[in-house]
Order: sequence, then structure tokens, then C-alpha cells
Amino acid sequence: MTYAAPALIAADWGTTNFRLFLFGTDGEIIAKHTANIGLKNLGVLTFEQALLSVMKGDFDRPDLPILLSGMVGSRTGWVEAPYQSCPSSLADIAAHLVTAPSDRLKVRIVPGLCASADHEGLLNVMRGEETQLFGLGDGVFVLPGTHSKWAKVEGSVIEGFSSYMTGEMFQVLKRNSILGDLMDNDKDDEEAFKLGVDRAMADKSFLSLVFSVRTEGLFGHIAPESLSSYLSGLLIGSEIRAESIRHGIRPVGIVGDGSLSKLYKRALNHTGFTDVTIHDGDTAAAGGLWAIAQQGKLVL
Amino acid sequence: MTYAAPALIAADWGTTNFRLFLFGTDGEIIAKHTANIGLKNLGVLTFEQALLSVMKGDFDRPDLPILLSGMVGSRTGWVEAPYQSCPSSLADIAAHLVTAPSDRLKVRIVPGLCASADHEGLLNVMRGEETQLFGLGDGVFVLPGTHSKWAKVEGSVIEGFSSYMTGEMFQVLKRNSILGDLMDNDKDDEEAFKLGVDRAMADKSFLSLVFSVRTEGLFGHIAPESLSSYLSGLLIGSEIRAESIRHGIRPVGIVGDGSLSKLYKRALNHTGFTDVTIHDGDTAAAGGLWAIAQQGKLVL
Repeated sequence: MTYAAPALIAADWGTTNFRLFLFGTDGEIIAKHTANIGLKNLGVLTFEQALLSVMKGDFDRPDLPILLSGMVGSRTGWVEAPYQSCPSSLADIAAHLVTAPSDRLKVRIVPGLCASADHEGLLNVMRGEETQLFGLGDGVFVLPGTHSKWAKVEGSVIEGFSSYMTGEMFQVLKRNSILGDLMDNDKDDEEAFKLGVDRAMADKSFLSLVFSVRTEGLFGHIAPESLSSYLSGLLIGSEIRAESIRHGIRPVGIVGDGSLSKLYKRALNHTGFTDVTIHDGDTAAAGGLWAIAQQGKLVL
Repeated sequence: MTYAAPALIAADWGTTNFRLFLFGTDGEIIAKHTANIGLKNLGVLTFEQALLSVMKGDFDRPDLPILLSGMVGSRTGWVEAPYQSCPSSLADIAAHLVTAPSDRLKVRIVPGLCASADHEGLLNVMRGEETQLFGLGDGVFVLPGTHSKWAKVEGSVIEGFSSYMTGEMFQVLKRNSILGDLMDNDKDDEEAFKLGVDRAMADKSFLSLVFSVRTEGLFGHIAPESLSSYLSGLLIGSEIRAESIRHGIRPVGIVGDGSLSKLYKRALNHTGFTDVTIHDGDTAAAGGLWAIAQQGKLVL
């Protein structure tokens, strides 16, 4: 097996995740690497030290251009790459790459994006997801997670997006509120999940909906091991409800891996979104990094 | 000053609060007492021991009938007084008082209430608030707190109510989520609060609204000391939005004391509820306990 010559090192570098790619001159991925050097785990290492620590083997190429996306470009990252406003094209993003201070490496960082939601003044931000989106093409995408994003890409332009505090809300309610007290031995209960989705689609008040996790448990209508699925359905259903109201039923791409993506697919299918595709998050990130590097002339 | 002869000892006994009243034969309050024996603070004391420990001075009357409302009647209380369904009248409640096991005291406990919200199957519960409501007369009332209630009383019947996890949501988001990180030196900022109320009234997605606390802070649109007011406005506004959609603009009574009631009044006035009255929570509880005791023939 032969590879094109290495041309670019790139990484999706977030608060917890770090995914490193080595690209050949034709955009093929020659090598991949993940490491436990998310922003939360840097300890006393500088960003340059952390990056150098993983540039071994195939990646031992400090001469190559390096492109980074994600929280590494935030105010608390290596260097701030200020948010660009939506609508934003690949060319807009590539024109605003920021050079990180480093004596030994040639590092450019992808800016994050900001967007006003439908209600005036309600601001949304993303860092890293814009790169994944540029690796996917046109469509409506949901990027589930701590702070889920729903974005619309048209003609290779990210038109806008909304944020939902879904994943974090699930964690704090489960861990820190009275709702978690009744949960026990969590299992994936499809029926309880869909009940949650249905109620979120039908009802008007999130603060009332979440209180029902308590009463459903208290009256024994939902078993302790299924309450977590019910809460998850309420949360994901609330997201889908808002998007349905704003933008209607459309083909949707889910970006991400594992069980969370499957839950979103289940909820979307259940609520009438029949055309739903799951995209691998790593592949999307790699595709976007390569596209930005080309557009920004980091590679020929 | 002379008092009617003591006829009843009664208490609102909740998870944290304990408010004790001594009534004369004409319903006048002869003595009041509060103590730190909420359900959370009982330690090794039995309910009987805890109650006896505060029956001193004017309250040293183990011969009198005793009526208790609140979480003391829950599954983890002295004895469970099962939830009664709405609509529920004073007579319904009085017919379902439960006797607590005690060799030394004659104790009856007021049952809690349950109600379906507008969306089928979404259950709501209260314990203690039903007693306050029976002390207030007819109207629409909001009882702000950890789990806020909105209830409608007509012809001395509690027709129904909704619950909102407002107070607890505020605490967990402030203490345990990323939103609290940007807050500092909290002050009461009326403008930020009203902005939050306005946005909650206008927007459709709670999970999107709460994320805006982060972006407003991140972009410096709202100062760190005012973000808590903004979040509070979003939460209280979400409650008012749901009630407005369901039941329209009406005269509203707020039951409770202190700054939280004032915030609710401010938000209600701001959103077009012009006829808003604040009722003292202690007075409401005492009035309800006396009315239930009369109806249940604990007093003549």
C-alpha cells in the first residue's frame, strides 16, 4: 500500500476530545491518533508542549502546516480566533484563520461561528462544529451533545444555527436535582423514551414537563430504571419540537457517534422525520479540516 | 388582653419549614412558633419526639387536637396521607384526614393533592399548598418556590393546578452547570430580569433560552453580576408564558414572602397581569389549617 506524501497535520481539539489526523497531498488520511489532552486535561503543559507530545511516529513532522479547530481557538485556548458571524462560507472561515504563537510549529486555528437565533438578540456560538459541517455538504444537521446545535448549510454556506443545552441539562438534572433520586439501574427503555418525546412535542412548558419525571416515578407509572429514558425523551423531544416549529419537517443529518446519535434518530423518526442519516463525527471533522486547509492554501 | 380558650394546635410541616400555631376556640391565633425540625433535619428524632420537643409554654397542651399539613404526610413522613384528586373541596380534604400513630398525641394529617395538567397523563402533586389555598378563598394563585404551583380555586374547590420546577432549576443551573461559571457578585438587575422575561414570553425553546445566559455573558452583553437576574427572568417568564397560553391574563394572587414574591409580581406586571396581590404564606397556612379543622370537626 502506498500513500501520497504527508502534507498536513490537523486536529479537532476540544475541551475533552483531541483527534489528530495526518493528510497526504491528495487529502487522504494517512494516520489518525487520539489523545487525552483535551483543554480540561492539559495540566501544566502549554498547548505547544501538548501538541509536540503527540507528534511522534508518522506525526513527527514539525515542518508540516498544522490546522486546529475547536475550543483550542477560544479565549481560554492557545490563541483566540474570534467568532465569525453567520452566514459564513468556507472562504469566510479560511480568510480568518489565526496563527498560534509558536517558535517550533506552523499552527493556524479555525475561528468559531456565532449566529442570532430566530428571536432577536439570542446569540449562539459553536467551535469545532463549523469544521464538521464543512466536511458534510449541504443540508440540515443536528450535532447532539452537551450543547446541541442545529445548523443549516446551503451552497456551502452555514446559514445559521441554534444551540440547545440538552446534554448538560440531562446531566445536571440527573446528578444534581431531585429527579435523579428516583432513578436506579438505568436501562434504555424505548417506550418510556418515546412517551417523553411525545409529551415534549405536545406540551408547552419545559419546567412542567421535567417535573413530571418526579410524579411518574412517585406514582409508579414509570419504573426507576426507565425514568432516565423518559427524561432523555423529554429533552430531545423539546429540541425537535422547537426545530419543527421553526423549520418544519425536513431531511436531517445527525453528526456523531454511538448511542446518542441513535437516540436522536429514534426520536426524529418517531416524530415524522423519515429522511434521517447518521454521519460519523471524526470523518466529518477530517473532511472539514482538509477543505479549510485547501481553501486557506495551507496545502496546494 | 384576653384570649379565647386554646382549642387546636396545628402546623405546616415541610421538608425544611416547620410553622406551629395555637388557635383559640374562635379561630384566633394565640401563639406562633417556628423550629428547625423540617423533615430534612429530624436526625434520630421520631416525628412524635420532634413535635413534643416544641410543645412547650403555650403549646404544652398534649390534650388538644393536632392538625398537620405538608410533607409530614408523604411516604417518607409520619404516616402517608394519600393524594386526593382534583377537583377537591374543603369537605373532600377533611374527609380524608389520616390519623398519625401516636400514644400520647391526637394527630391528624392533611392529604396532599394530585392533578392532571392540560396534557393528558402529566401528573402534578402538592403537599401543604392545598392548605394554604383553603386559607385564601377563590381565585388563581401562584405559589413560587422550588417546585412552583399555579392553582385555580372556584367556589372553595381547588379545580386543578400545574407544577413548574422553577426554583430547583435555578439552583442547579447556577450551581452545577456552565451557566454559573460566568456569574459573579449577583445583584438584582431589573432590566436584565425583564429582558429574560420578555425572551421567555417570546421564544419557544427553554433549552435554547438558557444557553443564551452563556452567550450573553461571553459577549459581554450582560454583566457577570446581572446574569443571575437574567436567568431568573427566563425561568419565571417561562412559567408565566405557559400559564398565559393555557389560561390567559387574569387576576393572580401570589402566596409567599420576601424577594421571590416581589420578583413574580414584577414579572407578572411586566407581562400584562395588572391585578396582582401578594399574600403572606404563614397567614394562608394558618387560615387553611383552621378551616380544615372546623370542617373535619376537630374543633367545635
